[in-house]
Amino acid sequence: MHKLTLLTLAGSLAFAAPALAQQAEKMDQAALAKIKDEGMNRSKVMETAFYLTDVCGPRLANSDGLNRANEWTKKQLTSWGLVKANVEPWGTFGRGWDIEKSYVAMTAPYYHTLIGAPKAWTPSTNGSLKKQVVVLKATTEAELDKYKGQLRDKIVLLDVANPPKPSFEPDAKRYTDDELKKMADFKPEATAAKPDEAEMEKRMAQRRTMMALRTKMSDMILSEGAAAILSTRGGSDGTFFTSNGAPYAADAKPVLPELEMSPEDQLRLIRLSEAGIPVEIELETRTRFQDKDLKGYNVVAEIPGTDRKLKSEVVMLGGHLDSWHAATGATDNAAGCAIMMEAVRILKATGVQPRRTIRIALWGEEEQGLFGSRNYVKNHFADPATMKLLPEHEKLAAYFNLDNGAGKIRGIYAQGNEAVAPIFQQWLQPFADLGATTVTTRNTGGTDHLSFDAVGLPGFQFIQDPLDYGSRTHHTNMDTYERLPADDLKQASVLVASFVYQAAMRDQKLPRKPLPAAKPETQRL
Amino acid sequence: MHKLTLLTLAGSLAFAAPALAQQAEKMDQAALAKIKDEGMNRSKVMETAFYLTDVCGPRLANSDGLNRANEWTKKQLTSWGLVKANVEPWGTFGRGWDIEKSYVAMTAPYYHTLIGAPKAWTPSTNGSLKKQVVVLKATTEAELDKYKGQLRDKIVLLDVANPPKPSFEPDAKRYTDDELKKMADFKPEATAAKPDEAEMEKRMAQRRTMMALRTKMSDMILSEGAAAILSTRGGSDGTFFTSNGAPYAADAKPVLPELEMSPEDQLRLIRLSEAGIPVEIELETRTRFQDKDLKGYNVVAEIPGTDRKLKSEVVMLGGHLDSWHAATGATDNAAGCAIMMEAVRILKATGVQPRRTIRIALWGEEEQGLFGSRNYVKNHFADPATMKLLPEHEKLAAYFNLDNGAGKIRGIYAQGNEAVAPIFQQWLQPFADLGATTVTTRNTGGTDHLSFDAVGLPGFQFIQDPLDYGSRTHHTNMDTYERLPADDLKQASVLVASFVYQAAMRDQKLPRKPLPAAKPETQRL
Repeated sequence: MHKLTLLTLAGSLAFAAPALAQQAEKMDQAALAKIKDEGMNRSKVMETAFYLTDVCGPRLANSDGLNRANEWTKKQLTSWGLVKANVEPWGTFGRGWDIEKSYVAMTAPYYHTLIGAPKAWTPSTNGSLKKQVVVLKATTEAELDKYKGQLRDKIVLLDVANPPKPSFEPDAKRYTDDELKKMADFKPEATAAKPDEAEMEKRMAQRRTMMALRTKMSDMILSEGAAAILSTRGGSDGTFFTSNGAPYAADAKPVLPELEMSPEDQLRLIRLSEAGIPVEIELETRTRFQDKDLKGYNVVAEIPGTDRKLKSEVVMLGGHLDSWHAATGATDNAAGCAIMMEAVRILKATGVQPRRTIRIALWGEEEQGLFGSRNYVKNHFADPATMKLLPEHEKLAAYFNLDNGAGKIRGIYAQGNEAVAPIFQQWLQPFADLGATTVTTRNTGGTDHLSFDAVGLPGFQFIQDPLDYGSRTHHTNMDTYERLPADDLKQASVLVASFVYQAAMRDQKLPRKPLPAAKPETQRL
Repeated sequence: MHKLTLLTLAGSLAFAAPALAQQAEKMDQAALAKIKDEGMNRSKVMETAFYLTDVCGPRLANSDGLNRANEWTKKQLTSWGLVKANVEPWGTFGRGWDIEKSYVAMTAPYYHTLIGAPKAWTPSTNGSLKKQVVVLKATTEAELDKYKGQLRDKIVLLDVANPPKPSFEPDAKRYTDDELKKMADFKPEATAAKPDEAEMEKRMAQRRTMMALRTKMSDMILSEGAAAILSTRGGSDGTFFTSNGAPYAADAKPVLPELEMSPEDQLRLIRLSEAGIPVEIELETRTRFQDKDLKGYNVVAEIPGTDRKLKSEVVMLGGHLDSWHAATGATDNAAGCAIMMEAVRILKATGVQPRRTIRIALWGEEEQGLFGSRNYVKNHFADPATMKLLPEHEKLAAYFNLDNGAGKIRGIYAQGNEAVAPIFQQWLQPFADLGATTVTTRNTGGTDHLSFDAVGLPGFQFIQDPLDYGSRTHHTNMDTYERLPADDLKQASVLVASFVYQAAMRDQKLPRKPLPAAKPETQRL
């Protein structure tokens, strides 16, 4: 899930379900029972998740790991009987990047191995370094200026914003009935407080000032001739958050080697140094840029429709295959991809005959800005900047996305689509015993369904139990296979397979919201 | 705290407080107010904790770190005005051991730095190794035998008993009023269930079988010519538990280099290898044995008594200064030492005039078997094997210990001493507002007060809020300074200072339990 994901945005349309006359949905209970049986009793979702995480490895945009995952998923989908499996370029992304070595330790005042990893797209160190540290703490340009002349050949330690401490809250949770009821009852117009524009402008100004200071800080550390940077964005207990330390563009300006550290280690170094005790760091990173193929890719594959009239229409499902680099992106988003792949496997294995064509898409470069899905939508359906519709636009029945971790499905976000909500309510009914009952009008953001929504296509994301996604795994070095509860993934696979199946069988495509106006890039998320 | 600590043992004597006629304790409220004021408002406990953890570093028995801590605490106690500060040898311990380098990474099927550390007292690798792995899983000798001929030159991966998963329980907790009431109401004779001897014998037999298998496994891995071992004793999220991988004895038989790993990393290696994917590990550890001085040490220092008759009597307080090696032993037990040091600093700073002599002892080699305190008791008071009492035995008024993490003090374990309980009840009264109210007859085990209790001396340990000691810090690589909440350490320092002061002022020494019978080593904990 992209950085903005954890925001849940208020919907723009009211959903007044009880007031609508609900048309009964046709439901083939025998087919749904087969889907449930296959998914719960002969699941392969954990095997798929293992391949995506452990075998393919970290799947940073355009990295070796993502390339492995592209090839493996294409092969695997084909082996299950899907057709037209393809690693489809979406356009130009930028450089790939992989870690070939990463070692960092404190060698004075005593030896201690440190937990950390290079920030994405940072360069190698010049071999193995042994250097003294300088702690750099500055909240104004004047404070920053004081460090002039002090950074040459040093390893610069940046401050830790949120030091870890004993935690009295569990990492993981599931939605309570009460929380789900609040989502179901959500009425945007009744609860949306008018934003305080003066306050928002003040915060934006503070943010701009801070960003400008950070840029100046980076430039100064580089121009003063520092050797490397150690920083941290948070975490605890050996868990640290990761991000990119440099642009992926082929012509990006140079930056220093920079590692993201476990806060406990970073704080020890800072405390020692600030107490006047000389701290020496040994550091070696070797990273490799791949700049031969700058294109980005999505993996797609299909189950052909069986209805003569409807098979030219498409039900899509997907999730992003790329991840951050310090772990194997298990909950973000191997889980979503494994579940989507399992859903199509279930549909093939049960032998159900979907009327419409079903197409799975595993997106690339979501973490860098939803690039895979945005460009797929632009290439196939419409460019939101012009809203000139391509022929495929009218053929898409629905897109279903999954990218909120590994928790089981508790319902679905109707994404402000008033007409679709009562349909989803009925589709959920056979799965109430699996804990999925809630349709909310709340929008949810931050991931690939937005690319469809932005051109007026019906794109939806499911509600998932949060588990430890927000606290422990999302963009951390601990987003590993262990965080995937098999029962949750099985349940989600069944739910997704059933929704996709229903959307493929329905007489009509899913209802759409009115087409949005054309919006230039700068006005979009 | 020693490995057995987390057990709370049932007391052997009943405590019937309400039935006893309580003699009123003299309490100098002005002096107690001074102690509280100094400890709460001018505390240095976090500064002391910083030096013990970050500056001294890991403090494994007889390591450089413990030596640094011995010298620093001696100097620091002297600087606060304590006298006779001494690093006092207690006898022969064994070899010291320090880590000089530790690097471990997976280099195939792709690169990934691994989180781990050498087990204590394991040897260096022969330079930097790059080797294939073998997963070794055996619960019987027959299963073990199957690995013959397969281990040569390999890195052996041992199994993970408890794989991590999303956690729905908070790491840290405080005692509830209800839990404290249960402790206070504890009646050993009413609740102690007769142990099922057949069941216990069965478990012991299973344990012996398992230990024998492990020994055979170690011998086989060594004799088959494996290169190194990676194993894990648990943990999650980048946290792993640590222990020793070899005896510290100077004449210990050779073992292989062995690292304790984060379970997430270990499991990834195991899953890949078991799926038939060749896994290559790069590994370099350099460890250094210190065998010039095999003696173990305790640090002692005194505040001399001021009462002509009573100053030959001694009130002791202490905690163990040694720790495990993969972190800085913050909660186990820099916290206890910092609090004990702060308590004597408070007593000096307030200018109170204790009648008896107060002696602080910071024990060595507790983690290896309470060696520092046991031998101190043997050298100064009595050998429990003979119970021949030395002259100092009758001079000890009390010993107070702290070694249950960094949580604030909620009361004290009376350790089966019926007569002392009502005294402690009164001593706690002035500190009810700080949350310390509970006297329990429950015994508590696993640490240095046991050495005193074993020879009939009144040795006590305080009840502390557990925080994340059991779940996150005890014997892990994450037992760091961050885990020490300043408010908890300040409160505990005040409580300890007040207890020590009361014990030094009281007309009589604290009441003792009857002297135990002499017990050979094998019959003791």
